[in-house]
Amino acid sequence: MPAAASGAEAIHELSIFTAATESFTQKNTNCSIAESLQRFEPIMTKAKEMNLNVRAYISVAFGCPYEGPNVNPHKVADLAVSLLEMGANEISVADTTGMGTAPKTLELLKTLNAAGIDKSDLALHFHDTYGQALVNSVVALEHGIRTFDAAVGGLGGCPFSPGATGNVATEDLVHCFHSLGAKTGVDIEKLSEVGEWITQELGTPNASRAGKATLSQLRKARN
Amino acid sequence: MPAAASGAEAIHELSIFTAATESFTQKNTNCSIAESLQRFEPIMTKAKEMNLNVRAYISVAFGCPYEGPNVNPHKVADLAVSLLEMGANEISVADTTGMGTAPKTLELLKTLNAAGIDKSDLALHFHDTYGQALVNSVVALEHGIRTFDAAVGGLGGCPFSPGATGNVATEDLVHCFHSLGAKTGVDIEKLSEVGEWITQELGTPNASRAGKATLSQLRKARN
Repeated sequence: MPAAASGAEAIHELSIFTAATESFTQKNTNCSIAESLQRFEPIMTKAKEMNLNVRAYISVAFGCPYEGPNVNPHKVADLAVSLLEMGANEISVADTTGMGTAPKTLELLKTLNAAGIDKSDLALHFHDTYGQALVNSVVALEHGIRTFDAAVGGLGGCPFSPGATGNVATEDLVHCFHSLGAKTGVDIEKLSEVGEWITQELGTPNASRAGKATLSQLRKARN
Repeated sequence: MPAAASGAEAIHELSIFTAATESFTQKNTNCSIAESLQRFEPIMTKAKEMNLNVRAYISVAFGCPYEGPNVNPHKVADLAVSLLEMGANEISVADTTGMGTAPKTLELLKTLNAAGIDKSDLALHFHDTYGQALVNSVVALEHGIRTFDAAVGGLGGCPFSPGATGNVATEDLVHCFHSLGAKTGVDIEKLSEVGEWITQELGTPNASRAGKATLSQLRKARN
């Protein structure tokens, strides 16, 4: 989340976080879901005064480390509606635990749609903990979602979601979407080099399979 | 491939290997595609005498390390027809390089279908080098394929396919197919324990994300 800055032009977006279950909200942000919404109100007012876009995350929307894999999609939809009505510009629906599956993704997207939420107000945020991030992303892409969160090299994780891996690797997602004919404007070779650079700087393994394979092909072509 | 055994009852299946491109066939088996088919004839005759099922692999069916990603699906279909006519009981169509994508998988399956090959005579064999194995597997499952090759812990690789990773992890595939409602008869928890055991025995990293996440959940439940 961007801190208060002397030049507002440096800040493009402000992010706020709540979650689809009470247990996770308590662990992650130390308050109830209702309290998290109350806390957002002054932040949202200030953001609007500063002409900042607000992005609201709904964590554990596909499964909770404390309450299990069956999170109520109607709870997610209710929260999304509240956040949009409060002034959020975009909702990032997050599979923090990686428990999302293709059928659950479709069910949640249909529930959000039935609640009157426009697809263009949604972003999907998958973690690849169980290896299902790309399968779920393809379902969402086919359903009309066009904004996806990802991290080069599969960086990230969550201290309150035991065993959670990082976000789905941007390189894997871009490779997949390109294969389906999508235009992303992203150069997969340059992206793969960024993923390799940042994971080396951080001393973590590069978790992107498409990134590593692309670099391997590049090295072969140069030799 | 099972070696000659004193008790034929110990052998259930015999596997033979050719490939969809001349370059790969030369590197992998040191002969042309036509020569590989000739070599199979006496093997096939002997196998039939011994009442052995024969499984024929077509490597690099979705992309070749020497000839690139655009392998002709009609070449794969012609080879599959030749192998089935020669007496093969099953064809494993192998994405040795991991260059397979969802549209290429669908195109190849349609081409095999148009060539008169029954879905029940096909197995799909994906490597996860570019992270697309599960996406491609879902396409194949939806197309009616019911046999998939995989390896616990994502073991394997290919010395003649530079940068190739192992087979798609069985744990990831089973987790994905279970999520789609498929009945596999596989216990994902026991499977994950096998993957962890064998990768530790071999001293290689466990490449199954579903396997590692399942074990993490199991440990949490036991504590």
